Amino acid sequence: MPAFGLAARDSSGIVSPFHFSRRANGDHDITINILYCGICHGDVHYLRNEMQGRNFVYPMVAGHEIVGKVIKVGRNVEKFKLGDIAGVGPICGSCQSCSSCNRGWEVYCPKRIATYNSIDRDGSVTYGGYSDKTVVDEHFAVKMPNSLPLDGAAPLLCAGLTVYSPMKYYGLCEAGQHLGVVGLGGLGHVAVKFAKAMNMKVTVISTSPGKKKEALESHGADAFILSTDQQQLQVAKDSMDGIIDTVAGPHSLDPLVDLLKTGGKLVMVGASPKNPELPTMPLMMGRKMIAGSAAGGMKESQEMIDFAAKHNITADIEVVSMDEVNTALERVAKNDVKYRFVIDVANTLHKVSQSDNE
Amino acid sequence: MPAFGLAARDSSGIVSPFHFSRRANGDHDITINILYCGICHGDVHYLRNEMQGRNFVYPMVAGHEIVGKVIKVGRNVEKFKLGDIAGVGPICGSCQSCSSCNRGWEVYCPKRIATYNSIDRDGSVTYGGYSDKTVVDEHFAVKMPNSLPLDGAAPLLCAGLTVYSPMKYYGLCEAGQHLGVVGLGGLGHVAVKFAKAMNMKVTVISTSPGKKKEALESHGADAFILSTDQQQLQVAKDSMDGIIDTVAGPHSLDPLVDLLKTGGKLVMVGASPKNPELPTMPLMMGRKMIAGSAAGGMKESQEMIDFAAKHNITADIEVVSMDEVNTALERVAKNDVKYRFVIDVANTLHKVSQSDNE
Repeated sequence: MPAFGLAARDSSGIVSPFHFSRRANGDHDITINILYCGICHGDVHYLRNEMQGRNFVYPMVAGHEIVGKVIKVGRNVEKFKLGDIAGVGPICGSCQSCSSCNRGWEVYCPKRIATYNSIDRDGSVTYGGYSDKTVVDEHFAVKMPNSLPLDGAAPLLCAGLTVYSPMKYYGLCEAGQHLGVVGLGGLGHVAVKFAKAMNMKVTVISTSPGKKKEALESHGADAFILSTDQQQLQVAKDSMDGIIDTVAGPHSLDPLVDLLKTGGKLVMVGASPKNPELPTMPLMMGRKMIAGSAAGGMKESQEMIDFAAKHNITADIEVVSMDEVNTALERVAKNDVKYRFVIDVANTLHKVSQSDNE
Repeated sequence: MPAFGLAARDSSGIVSPFHFSRRANGDHDITINILYCGICHGDVHYLRNEMQGRNFVYPMVAGHEIVGKVIKVGRNVEKFKLGDIAGVGPICGSCQSCSSCNRGWEVYCPKRIATYNSIDRDGSVTYGGYSDKTVVDEHFAVKMPNSLPLDGAAPLLCAGLTVYSPMKYYGLCEAGQHLGVVGLGGLGHVAVKFAKAMNMKVTVISTSPGKKKEALESHGADAFILSTDQQQLQVAKDSMDGIIDTVAGPHSLDPLVDLLKTGGKLVMVGASPKNPELPTMPLMMGRKMIAGSAAGGMKESQEMIDFAAKHNITADIEVVSMDEVNTALERVAKNDVKYRFVIDVANTLHKVSQSDNE
């Protein structure tokens, strides 16, 4: 099936029009006419080949926060019918038979297939959502609820899932619990919204004084800690049941572990290029733990999006057109976005196809 | 109440006869005629003032693996009667009203009182079990079962609890699970015995090739990994549900985290003077966690000792007399013991009291 989108040709990460093909719609597949696609911070690292230890294949079509209309259904498809709205997140395949898959943890399957820059079952390279259409096994698509605006919902498929999954898995989701959220970006601001919907007490922890007003007024956080202020940290010591740490840059974990109550849990969802030190004694003396988490499985994805619909939660976004993607990627690299860019794919595709001279 | 034991007078850590007094037996207290006291590796660090950030008070009477006969009971004592055998571990007091105490996590109470080198409620310094008698609130004593030899049971009160508590708390106690035990010393060899009694598969991980035979033949471990052998580590990758890491010296956590299955748990119970690096990406990509744990609470202590009795588990010990304690401490410092020294207090007290010229 012919497809069209924006691809990076090399590690400059600059995207330009690209004609390619997708597999034919199989018996378990749906074909999606892409309406919106979020720009994840990870897209920048992938497009620029900045992720150590990963294999990169160019041309690369990024995008793993995809929302679109179902325009074809395979004969065995049960979950979708024509015209439904489907969402696709960071993975589009897995073995579906290993212990991780059997637990609904597809994203941890050793044979998981990433939505882009991965090798599909047929040996072809997967291309992401900065494009007109995609074909996906229905197991790896979620049903988008009718009540949510689709542009704001798109980033939930990666950013939302990445914070929702550990909150549920590690039991940081109960009313009255105190949750710390480190970093108020694409992931952090959704974590605050989820936690407030769960009736938790939420404290945002950030290095930016300017985020205080946003945290408290725009997102309903209960408190804000400037992480460079020792006194603020001291006052909040031993007060949190858990912390979701969304910061990808290098930072010390010691003050965060100190914020946890006895038995508290610190979950890292942002990968740093340099490993921090593990504060062993504070962990031991407080029965604390530090865990990692990556996106989530398909059952969690559907649960997350249904939870978001129930509580009317979307990401705060800035919508861009297909011809603005390079500018948006630049701005993401500089953290100059509140809090997520979403590409209005269907309405603006013509702007790049007109300029496509390939 | 007059008491007599062995105390270090300074950071040489050398112990010598010492006359002191204990508080009178209160309404909730029991007085114990000490029969046996284990020598914990921590005793060496405490006696020699090698624990950073702790306050040391000399003279210091060490010992927090105490077993003895109840010779006095306060009027409100419910759990013990005269002649019962009681055990005392690392703590002898806590506030009994904070959230940790209310959960039965007395050892994590900010006001916990350590069995020695701590300030008791009345302001006096606590003295440990290298002595003839002790007085303790019955809440902080466990009932020793009749079926266990008391000398081999003494080390369970610290070493046994320190491994049992996290195994239960972190759910690493189910039949069929695969547990790694790092280090085959005082803590490690008891962890192997507990895990085998729980019908787990147990792999000992050690830097000493000589421990292989002991691990497999003496303690019934199922497998052994020499942690300096990359090939052995590679073969066992992604195979363990959990790891209890008893090693106190500096060591990399990366190979241990790699041994864990997706969702696996690494629990540190040995404090290293230098913090290791946290392998963030492997934690994230495998939904893994690293936790710390310190001894355990009183409910866990009783449960642990009852479990040990049911499965006839004791520590492998070398019994020493009161006049051999300095030699034993020297050997502990060199890890030259299999696996725990226990002082035969009651039968050999006369050997030091005869030479006591103070």
